[in-house]
Amino acid sequence: MEMWLKEEQIESAAMTYKVKETLVRRKTDFQDLAILDTEAFGRMLVLDGIVQTTINDEYVYHEMISHIPLFTHPNPKKVLVVGGGDGGAIREVLKHPSVEKAVLCEIDGVVVEECKKHLPEISCALEDPRCEVFIGDGIKYVHEHKNEFDVIIVDSTDPFGAAEGLFGGSFYKEIYECLTEEGIFIAQTETPFYLPEVVKSVFSDAKAVFPVTKLFMAAIPTYPSGYWSFTVGSKKHDPENADLSKTIDISTKYYTKKLHKACFSLPKYVEDLIK
Amino acid sequence: MEMWLKEEQIESAAMTYKVKETLVRRKTDFQDLAILDTEAFGRMLVLDGIVQTTINDEYVYHEMISHIPLFTHPNPKKVLVVGGGDGGAIREVLKHPSVEKAVLCEIDGVVVEECKKHLPEISCALEDPRCEVFIGDGIKYVHEHKNEFDVIIVDSTDPFGAAEGLFGGSFYKEIYECLTEEGIFIAQTETPFYLPEVVKSVFSDAKAVFPVTKLFMAAIPTYPSGYWSFTVGSKKHDPENADLSKTIDISTKYYTKKLHKACFSLPKYVEDLIK
Repeated sequence: MEMWLKEEQIESAAMTYKVKETLVRRKTDFQDLAILDTEAFGRMLVLDGIVQTTINDEYVYHEMISHIPLFTHPNPKKVLVVGGGDGGAIREVLKHPSVEKAVLCEIDGVVVEECKKHLPEISCALEDPRCEVFIGDGIKYVHEHKNEFDVIIVDSTDPFGAAEGLFGGSFYKEIYECLTEEGIFIAQTETPFYLPEVVKSVFSDAKAVFPVTKLFMAAIPTYPSGYWSFTVGSKKHDPENADLSKTIDISTKYYTKKLHKACFSLPKYVEDLIK
Repeated sequence: MEMWLKEEQIESAAMTYKVKETLVRRKTDFQDLAILDTEAFGRMLVLDGIVQTTINDEYVYHEMISHIPLFTHPNPKKVLVVGGGDGGAIREVLKHPSVEKAVLCEIDGVVVEECKKHLPEISCALEDPRCEVFIGDGIKYVHEHKNEFDVIIVDSTDPFGAAEGLFGGSFYKEIYECLTEEGIFIAQTETPFYLPEVVKSVFSDAKAVFPVTKLFMAAIPTYPSGYWSFTVGSKKHDPENADLSKTIDISTKYYTKKLHKACFSLPKYVEDLIK
């Protein structure tokens, strides 16, 4: 028997992956969770039929969503990750020795539990003493913590259903309040190729709240179109022109200091969206 | 009845596209040619089952393979495109007013004929008086023309089967001879995510021939992994540090002057391949 996962990227185009084994399949209180072992990308986390992260390409997303804001902030001590229950962003955040505390606020405890069991390469740092895992609603958590985090990373699923509230102006205002004086916020913000309107409206919402707002792109093979946007909102420091001369060297597979600056140079069709 | 094209990107992962209509399906002397009308990407050219170009994302490939070398050369007058029978590269090349002659050397006349009929948005410039279409073997053509072209663009299919001879050191030596004094060569060189060894060996072959060799990346949704490499070999001018201050403005959807420089900043895993 041959098993293939089929993920519709848009209604009329799909990626399919040959599945060696279904390691987990559970209905949680929030979503349909699966961890599959695939031939092409190794083990992957799939939520509501959408590939979230895979052993073979997770480094792109987790490095870029973490190191861009953490190397932009001059001294990030306290970091909040909203979502990101697989632990990949936390793993990258904790590569920065300035970080004293990294809080993971994930609404679905089952994601954390199963990723700890089946994706240890990604979730490994959740056991680090500097990491605190809080299972609960990110919107409520952000609302209840003012002026507390130097960097907030919104590592959410797509802006439909459960994660809808994590996109848009009212949440970004709460994020702003939750950040310290030189605070920086980053979120994954979908693909401009298939969802130009989402990228446009999310960027515009962030721009209305933050003095500095920038968008960068990264190449993630298992995400629709292979090309993904991230939006950075910052109170003071410009991520594109960050002073990286004194930053430490960390071990990465995608991020480099040169790419940190270059990834903000956008294709014309993306530039036009956020004008 | 629902028709879907399935393209295996590697053995165990595939992209599938819903097909509205098969406009052409022909066995040529060289390959199995199809032009399909798809819902997600519009009309697409498919050779031996591999998507070559589509109405909805062709601009990325054609702009980047053309404008990077043409804006790097201070005064490109004569340009050769090897392969590229769809005419997309020629269309972009002829946006440069300095170009007096653009030769398309395509081995398969049927590709040119069918693209003229079914993909006019891409093939339109093949009728330009500055364009000469030559149906024949690119390797032979390059061998027979010495010191003649300012820019040579190798817009080939993958390095297996018919196009195999268009990759590698012995062809690059012929290309070098075919170029004028300040000549620049560019080729599409596959995806470093799925085919790291190909990228590595092609780059190393080009580096052995050209004083300046650089690799850049572009995000092409219908190509495997969505992330594609191009290798530039140049006799004198460095494409990454090209003087773009006096270049004209042309109408593009992907290329920008800022991106021209930034696209040479590579992810760590790609940088490591060409060290």
